[in-house]
Amino acid sequence: MKEIKGGVTAAKGFRAASTAAAIKYSGRTDMAMIYSDVPCSAAGTFTKNRVKAAPVKWDQDIVSRTKQAQAVVINAGIANACTGQEGMDYCQKTADRVSELFGVPAETVLVASTGVIGKQLPIDRICAGVEAMSKKLGADLESGYQAACAIMTTDTKEKEAAVELELSGKTVTIGGMSKGSGMIHPDMCTMLSFVTTDAAISQELLQEALRADVEDTYNMISVDGDTSTNDTCLLLANGMAQNPMITEKDEDYRAFCAALHMVNEALAKKMAGDGEGATALFEVKTIGAASKEQAKIIGKSVVSSNLTKAAIYGHDANWGRILCAMGYAGVEFEPEKVDLFFESAAGKIQIAKDGMGLDYSEEEATRILSEPVVTAVIDLKLGEESACAWGCDLTCDYVKINADYRS
Amino acid sequence: MKEIKGGVTAAKGFRAASTAAAIKYSGRTDMAMIYSDVPCSAAGTFTKNRVKAAPVKWDQDIVSRTKQAQAVVINAGIANACTGQEGMDYCQKTADRVSELFGVPAETVLVASTGVIGKQLPIDRICAGVEAMSKKLGADLESGYQAACAIMTTDTKEKEAAVELELSGKTVTIGGMSKGSGMIHPDMCTMLSFVTTDAAISQELLQEALRADVEDTYNMISVDGDTSTNDTCLLLANGMAQNPMITEKDEDYRAFCAALHMVNEALAKKMAGDGEGATALFEVKTIGAASKEQAKIIGKSVVSSNLTKAAIYGHDANWGRILCAMGYAGVEFEPEKVDLFFESAAGKIQIAKDGMGLDYSEEEATRILSEPVVTAVIDLKLGEESACAWGCDLTCDYVKINADYRS
Repeated sequence: MKEIKGGVTAAKGFRAASTAAAIKYSGRTDMAMIYSDVPCSAAGTFTKNRVKAAPVKWDQDIVSRTKQAQAVVINAGIANACTGQEGMDYCQKTADRVSELFGVPAETVLVASTGVIGKQLPIDRICAGVEAMSKKLGADLESGYQAACAIMTTDTKEKEAAVELELSGKTVTIGGMSKGSGMIHPDMCTMLSFVTTDAAISQELLQEALRADVEDTYNMISVDGDTSTNDTCLLLANGMAQNPMITEKDEDYRAFCAALHMVNEALAKKMAGDGEGATALFEVKTIGAASKEQAKIIGKSVVSSNLTKAAIYGHDANWGRILCAMGYAGVEFEPEKVDLFFESAAGKIQIAKDGMGLDYSEEEATRILSEPVVTAVIDLKLGEESACAWGCDLTCDYVKINADYRS
Repeated sequence: MKEIKGGVTAAKGFRAASTAAAIKYSGRTDMAMIYSDVPCSAAGTFTKNRVKAAPVKWDQDIVSRTKQAQAVVINAGIANACTGQEGMDYCQKTADRVSELFGVPAETVLVASTGVIGKQLPIDRICAGVEAMSKKLGADLESGYQAACAIMTTDTKEKEAAVELELSGKTVTIGGMSKGSGMIHPDMCTMLSFVTTDAAISQELLQEALRADVEDTYNMISVDGDTSTNDTCLLLANGMAQNPMITEKDEDYRAFCAALHMVNEALAKKMAGDGEGATALFEVKTIGAASKEQAKIIGKSVVSSNLTKAAIYGHDANWGRILCAMGYAGVEFEPEKVDLFFESAAGKIQIAKDGMGLDYSEEEATRILSEPVVTAVIDLKLGEESACAWGCDLTCDYVKINADYRS
C-alpha cells in the first residue's frame, strides 16, 4: 500500500471535468463532474443536520435505494439548501440532463452543492455546465486536479489524495477529492468529499467500510463547530481493477479498509489545515483513554474550543484552556491524572503533569507552537485506547471571511 | 417592583470593598470583598465542568453543608484552577484570614477567583488584600461599584443590577454584580455573579429560587462556547428587610423570584453584550415552540454559532446560517415551517417564511443589523412555548484578546 499522486481520476475507468458556469463566482471554474465508464456500487454518508440540503436528500435516496451510480455533478457557490420543492426539482433536472447526454438512468446520477444557503440554483446555467463538461471528460490526473479546484469555495488549496494497493495480485487504486474550509464540524460526514476506486467490492461492504471510516476521519475534524446542511461523502467503486469481488470481511476487505482510511484521513486533515483563516493544522492526540469513545469526545472538544484555537494562533501554551475544554466535553475522566504535551517539527515539551502545570520554558513552548502543524498530546492515564482529532487555529481572517461571505 | 441604582451594597446590611493586591495586574484594583453585618442564608450554583477550580469546590461545600455565609472574597487575574491541594489550601488560608479579622467562622467565608488557569495564587498578597479591605468596607453604592470594577478581567464594563420590591408591606432589595466576557457558555451558572438581598427567606427556598432562575438567565448566554472551570453564582440573603420570613411558595416567594429574575437577567445580558471583542448584544427569541426545552436548545445553538456570530458582526442577514445552527442543535423541529425575523431599534424585517428565504431588502436588513442590540426572532409554528438566549458577535478583537491573553 502506498500513496500516489492524483485524485478522483487515479482509479481506472474514472473521468472528470470542470467548467466555469457562473453559478456565483466569475473568472473561475465552479462546476465539476465525475463519470465512470461503467456503473459503480455507490456508498455515501451524509450530514446529521436536521436541515438537509436538496442534493443531500437526492443522494440519500440513490444510495439507499438504487445503490448504484455512474456520474456525480457538483457545483460551488450555492448550496441548494432551504430551497423547498424547487430545490429538489433542480436535482432532478440536473440528473435528467446527464441522463440525456450520457444515456445513463437519471437515478444513477448523484449531485452535490456547496455555497450560500437559501438561494435557488440558476438551473439553466447548471444544465449548460453539464453539457459543456460532457464534451471534455478526461481520465488524466490533470482533469481530476481541475475538478478538485472547481469545487472550492473559501478553500485556499485544492484537496486530493490517492493510494494504491494489491488485492489478490491485482493493483487497486483509491483516490478522492474534497472541499471544506468553514462550517466544518462534520456529524456523519464532512462538507463534500468524493472518493473513487476501481476495486470490485459489494455495495453492502462498500457502505459499511465508508460508514465506519468516516467516524475516525471526517467526523474527527472541526473548523468552527458548525455542522453543515450539505455534508456529503460519496464513494464509488467500479470494479475495473478486476480483483476478485470482495463480498466478505476477509484479508482483502481489511486491506481495502486500510487504504480507504489513508485517503479519507489525508482528505480530512487537508480540510482541517485549510480551515478558514487558519495558519496551522491543530492535531489533538488523546492517549491512555479507557475507551475509544472517551478519547474521541475529549479530543473533539479540545479541537473545537475557540479559546484553545485562539491560543494556538497566538503560539501561547495556554494549557488551562485545554483542561477546561476537556472538562466540559461531557465524559468522565480524572483531571488530576492528566499529562499534557505539545509537539511539532520543532520538538516536544511536557506542559502539565497529574493535572497541574510544570515549570516548563515558555520560550521553548512558543517555538514548538510556531510550526504549521501543531500537536497536543493528552495522556488520560486510564487505559490503552486513543484517538486523533484535527482542527485549526482561530484567526482574525476567519472572522473577516465570514463577516461578509455573501457579498 | 422597580429597577434601582446599585449592586451588591444596594440591600440593607451589605458592605463592600476593593483593593489593588497585585495578583496579576498592575495599576488597577483586582480584589473585592462583600460582607454582611449579620449571617446570611447562602445559595449557589456552580459550573458543571468536570475540571472545577478550587474556590468552586470550596463554595460548593459551604453552600451544601454550612448553608450560611457572611463574607465573600474575590480575586481577578488568577483562576486558582488546576492547582491541586495547594489551591485548596489557599481557599482555607483566605477564609482563615477573614475569620481572624472579623471574628466569623471560616466556614462562612466564600471565595471566588477568575483569570488564568493553572497558576498558583500569591497567597501572601491575597491575605494582605483581605486585611486592606477589612479597613475600608462601605455600605454606600460607590463601594459596591468599586467592587464590581475590581473583579473585571477582559470585561470592558462593570456589571451591576438592583431591584426593589414590597413583600408584605416591607421594602426588600436585591442587588448584584457579575463579571464575564470570555470562556462564557455557562452550564449551571456563569463566570462569577454575586447577588445580595435583605429579604428574609429560608435557605432551601433561596437555593431553589436561584437554581430555577439560572436556567433562564445565566445558562442562556454564550460568548464562545467555552464552559469555564470557575462559573459561580452566589446569592446571599440576610433578612434585614424584616419581611415575614418566606418559608413556602406563596405570593411573597413568587414576587421575590420575579425580582431575582430581573436582577439575574440584567446581569446575564450585560455579560453577553460585553463578550470579548463584541460590538453587539445578539438576542435570539425562539417562539411558537412545542416545549420550552426545545426553544432553549434551538436558541442557544444559534447564539453559539461562530458563523452566525460572524455574520452579525458583518451586519449580514445570512439567515441560512441560523437555519443551519437550528438544524444541528440536536432537537426535532420542522424546517419547512420556520419563520425568521430580524429586529432592533431600527425596525423589524421578515427574512424567511416556511423555511425559505423571502425577497426582502438587504439594505433594510443591514440597517436593522447595524444596531448595538440585535434580535433574531425564530417562529417554529409548533406550539406556544418560547425562550430567549443571549450572545454577541464574533470579531477580530475576540481573536486578538485570546491569542495573547497570558502575556
